[in-house]
Amino acid sequence: MKIICEKQELMKSLNIVQKAVPSRTTMTILECILVDARSDEIRFTANDMELGIETSVAGTIEERGMVALDAKIFSDIVRKLPDSLVTISSDDHLATVIKCEKAIFQIMGKDGDDFSMLPAVEKDNEVVISQFSLREMIRQTLFSISANDTNPIMAGELMEINEDKMRLISLDGHRISIRKVTLNDSYGSEKVIIPGKTLSEISKILSGEAEDLTFIYIQKNLILFEFDKTRVVSRLIDGNYFRVDQMISGDYETKVTISRRELMDSIDRAMLMVRESDRKPIILGIMDDIMEIRINSEIGSLDETIPIEKEGKDLNIGFNPKYVLDALRVIDDENIDIYYMNSKAPCIIRDSQSSYVYLILPVNFIN
Amino acid sequence: MKIICEKQELMKSLNIVQKAVPSRTTMTILECILVDARSDEIRFTANDMELGIETSVAGTIEERGMVALDAKIFSDIVRKLPDSLVTISSDDHLATVIKCEKAIFQIMGKDGDDFSMLPAVEKDNEVVISQFSLREMIRQTLFSISANDTNPIMAGELMEINEDKMRLISLDGHRISIRKVTLNDSYGSEKVIIPGKTLSEISKILSGEAEDLTFIYIQKNLILFEFDKTRVVSRLIDGNYFRVDQMISGDYETKVTISRRELMDSIDRAMLMVRESDRKPIILGIMDDIMEIRINSEIGSLDETIPIEKEGKDLNIGFNPKYVLDALRVIDDENIDIYYMNSKAPCIIRDSQSSYVYLILPVNFIN
Repeated sequence: MKIICEKQELMKSLNIVQKAVPSRTTMTILECILVDARSDEIRFTANDMELGIETSVAGTIEERGMVALDAKIFSDIVRKLPDSLVTISSDDHLATVIKCEKAIFQIMGKDGDDFSMLPAVEKDNEVVISQFSLREMIRQTLFSISANDTNPIMAGELMEINEDKMRLISLDGHRISIRKVTLNDSYGSEKVIIPGKTLSEISKILSGEAEDLTFIYIQKNLILFEFDKTRVVSRLIDGNYFRVDQMISGDYETKVTISRRELMDSIDRAMLMVRESDRKPIILGIMDDIMEIRINSEIGSLDETIPIEKEGKDLNIGFNPKYVLDALRVIDDENIDIYYMNSKAPCIIRDSQSSYVYLILPVNFIN
Repeated sequence: MKIICEKQELMKSLNIVQKAVPSRTTMTILECILVDARSDEIRFTANDMELGIETSVAGTIEERGMVALDAKIFSDIVRKLPDSLVTISSDDHLATVIKCEKAIFQIMGKDGDDFSMLPAVEKDNEVVISQFSLREMIRQTLFSISANDTNPIMAGELMEINEDKMRLISLDGHRISIRKVTLNDSYGSEKVIIPGKTLSEISKILSGEAEDLTFIYIQKNLILFEFDKTRVVSRLIDGNYFRVDQMISGDYETKVTISRRELMDSIDRAMLMVRESDRKPIILGIMDDIMEIRINSEIGSLDETIPIEKEGKDLNIGFNPKYVLDALRVIDDENIDIYYMNSKAPCIIRDSQSSYVYLILPVNFIN
């Protein structure tokens, strides 16, 4: 095999596929990136058996062939090369030479035939979403999956497609995060649970541009994302997701409108009073025109007030400050509405169209 | 005590003195920053008993007094405060309130009388150097001290003042680094060994401006650096430093002039072939117009050539690539001169005025 590519093109492609190289594995071939130039196109593939990424690389094929190269060494070498044309050639014994200007690296490759190719996914039902929307939705919900839980469903997110609406939903034992977007076309109805790791890695590769599209194909236990010159295939998580809509009540006794920034800054300060080992709640004292934020710990105390608009009853309610902060950080609105029932029931942060819904359970506190 | 300061001023001063707060200590009072407003000036002090830093803080004293506050909590709180006026007040029981806009923190302080004040240093002999020069000299030599050595002298650097010349010198068992500057005035002769940690922390606080000055005072086993509104006092290391000038020969059999950038990039690439556990040398093959850089390891091999100008004999010589790279990184010249004797003797990288001299021992290799 002999291929010639620009260093920058190689680096871009390596950065994409490397997201699917497992950090630890007993199968050393999976630590490799497959360089496949058997056809008219140069393709890089990495596959950790749950998540596989393939991308096509701009360049010239001088001699067709295939070789698997250790992902770390290959990327490290390319990164340190001068900004110029790079020639990669492998002989029949897989001895591989990477040449750029006057630098000549030689490393041993592995047999590409031993590599686990990506599973084929049929392209029957296509769902199209902008790369921007998909990346944002992932960022705005991924923090509340629960990877260490005994329930594997919680390690993933529900992707729900219903006509022209797509929702991403995550939850752990303490909170629920929901994001909804309207798609340009209308599709049937689909519900799949996508592993959190897949979503996390995809969100790092997506361009984030509103005009760039992602094409999604679902097939039994597999999902395929196609965008730019890249294909990401992931297994899906088996099982029925929680019925979150039943958990979210439309009723409330107290509604607060507050500056997101002010509440965030205040909670951020309150968290200084929390050692990781103890789980001191912040106490929100909701009165007519102000919310009082209080925390009291071994370290010291913080007391501050924020102006609010309030409908309904006064209320004292305690929260894990981190959970509130996680939700506030991914909302873009300047002012947010928070709905409370009582000090034992979850609060809900949502906008009027429910394009975002964040439910957080309160914690008990001694006043 | 009651003082009022701008948040930014507090933060700036905290960042300075925090460099002397020990990360681990059995004396909990040393984990504090002393807030001293007993006179007409607000002063922050930290002291790990080897290195002490004191800085004066712009602000208003409403009530004189003194309190020691946990450095981490105090800095964390100030960092998270809004950009506004901050009031710090302590009562007779050392309960301390930090107030900024609507945020009111309360933490417990410690008795300032328990704090170890900085030792007094007499200001007899003043040496003046620009902050820029001092910071650069530290950066350009500090990497070759040897903190883990059995010889405590190696954990420091020699500061040598001789008339209008100042030199900083460091060495470990494998290399020597020397930087020399010419001062604006002429002083006597002085030789002290300054702990590496002191130099490291000072270099982080120095403004780095050529027009800003540092005033240095030496007294038996103490050194005082004064600059801006800050005083840094450090103990000195006892003992006689190595006679490095005797170790550096002016003779050579081979002189090479080479692009620093090209040699750096090449060694940088060569280091990809080195696992931390093995100590594979790079082999420099010096011929008439080129230097060949070779390395060969379990990972693979690299071979590349760089154009050079050469005087004297051809030579094959091996080095620990990291040692060569460390020196090259802190030289500013575009082209550098390297002097070699033979494959068993150290090479010396220096400019014509010896404003920098880097000596590196070679390592044996099997060709």
